Amino acid sequence: MKKPLILVTNDDGITAPGIRALIRYMKELGDVVVVAPDGPQSGQGHAITIDNTLFANKIVVDKKHGASEEYNCSGTPADCVKMALQELLDRKPDICVSGINHGSNSSINVIYSGTMSAAIEAGIEGIPAIGFSLCDYSWHADFDQAGEIIKKIVSESLANGIPKGVVLNVNIPKAKKKEIKGIKICRQARANWKEKFDKRTNPGGKDYYWLTGEFELLDKGEDTDEWALANNYVSVVPTQFDLTAHHAIQQLNGWQFD
Amino acid sequence: MKKPLILVTNDDGITAPGIRALIRYMKELGDVVVVAPDGPQSGQGHAITIDNTLFANKIVVDKKHGASEEYNCSGTPADCVKMALQELLDRKPDICVSGINHGSNSSINVIYSGTMSAAIEAGIEGIPAIGFSLCDYSWHADFDQAGEIIKKIVSESLANGIPKGVVLNVNIPKAKKKEIKGIKICRQARANWKEKFDKRTNPGGKDYYWLTGEFELLDKGEDTDEWALANNYVSVVPTQFDLTAHHAIQQLNGWQFD
Repeated sequence: MKKPLILVTNDDGITAPGIRALIRYMKELGDVVVVAPDGPQSGQGHAITIDNTLFANKIVVDKKHGASEEYNCSGTPADCVKMALQELLDRKPDICVSGINHGSNSSINVIYSGTMSAAIEAGIEGIPAIGFSLCDYSWHADFDQAGEIIKKIVSESLANGIPKGVVLNVNIPKAKKKEIKGIKICRQARANWKEKFDKRTNPGGKDYYWLTGEFELLDKGEDTDEWALANNYVSVVPTQFDLTAHHAIQQLNGWQFD
Repeated sequence: MKKPLILVTNDDGITAPGIRALIRYMKELGDVVVVAPDGPQSGQGHAITIDNTLFANKIVVDKKHGASEEYNCSGTPADCVKMALQELLDRKPDICVSGINHGSNSSINVIYSGTMSAAIEAGIEGIPAIGFSLCDYSWHADFDQAGEIIKKIVSESLANGIPKGVVLNVNIPKAKKKEIKGIKICRQARANWKEKFDKRTNPGGKDYYWLTGEFELLDKGEDTDEWALANNYVSVVPTQFDLTAHHAIQQLNGWQFD
């Protein structure tokens, strides 16, 4: 049987430890091609590059443990997937995996996440896709515990097919391997960020700001990704790019527009 | 009665004709504060600025027709809303309106749209919010036909309240005022972009790319935004930021993870 073709990307950049681990795991399951940003693109959401040029270079990052084919790209995570599918790959990949992100993409973070936007972009183009994130922001996080879980989820996805119009958002708790209790299918918890802007003055006397904030969980449900992660489960949220709030259509039809 | 406080933003930048028209219309309905990007931010999706500094300046763009208070901001549309709500405004706005975008944000374009991301960011923070787009990419588009429609939709939103967790995505067809047949509540049409990368070589001999593409409608439904716009209706899609594909949870629970 022909090996599956696996497209790997991320938002932390092609040299980040998270994607290097993901590449190693994926090489056990199929043929791997990497198209990933040439530098950090965290928080890029679903940005695409329409007013600037894009570069892509075939490179070797890790001769021994890397993929057979790797490209870095000057664009956003969504750009990387577009460029992979339309320009760089010879055939349609069987699956696209994005990550492993250095940090959580659970609940509302999915909206801001470059990792998930890359996966969603692949989903829009009809490719089964999964974003993986480890709830550990350290650059030197231990990704080894994640290997078996990730391979299991990718294998099941290849075997069963991911439902059409759906992309999986997988978050892995920061916990030792033996502490992880299992994998839970969840819904996205209701949450937001309480921003604080750290206001400073630059050497020229001009005020500037750094965006900081605190995560605020607004959801007490036990079927959410936040609950799963807090209880040492891996969370899998089926995520969609049809943003229509179908339940609101009837209510809005009662408005007086005439 | 106290006038409503209306936060106005966009993704084409604070001097774009679309936002200047929107400010004029909103001044007829309430007190207006503008916080908008200092330059074009199209295609920025839900990007936020986490690895860079942000600037915001109180400015006067148009003494006669502008708002009483206007700020330009160096960040993305989502940054502008965060900064408005947490740092620049004295009180919580009653509604946030984004646009008028120079070009369509119908169907899958909602994912890439800075205009809609600004509105969605306000929605996440619990503010009723609407993104407005005119299906005319010209910088010198005629926004006058849109004024009555926009005021009607904002007035109804203030009167009825927008359902919780829902943000309105309004697209206005490129048509003369008398040709517009009415306002339709719609679902987001299934569609994607067939990208083409225009490959060129720079003076230094290095290849680079421009992202181009063609919109591909995959949906024949007559309840979609694309159908409405093609038939000269204004489309209103209730849009949500809970991305959970609830219908897929049961199916995924059948997977073998143990």
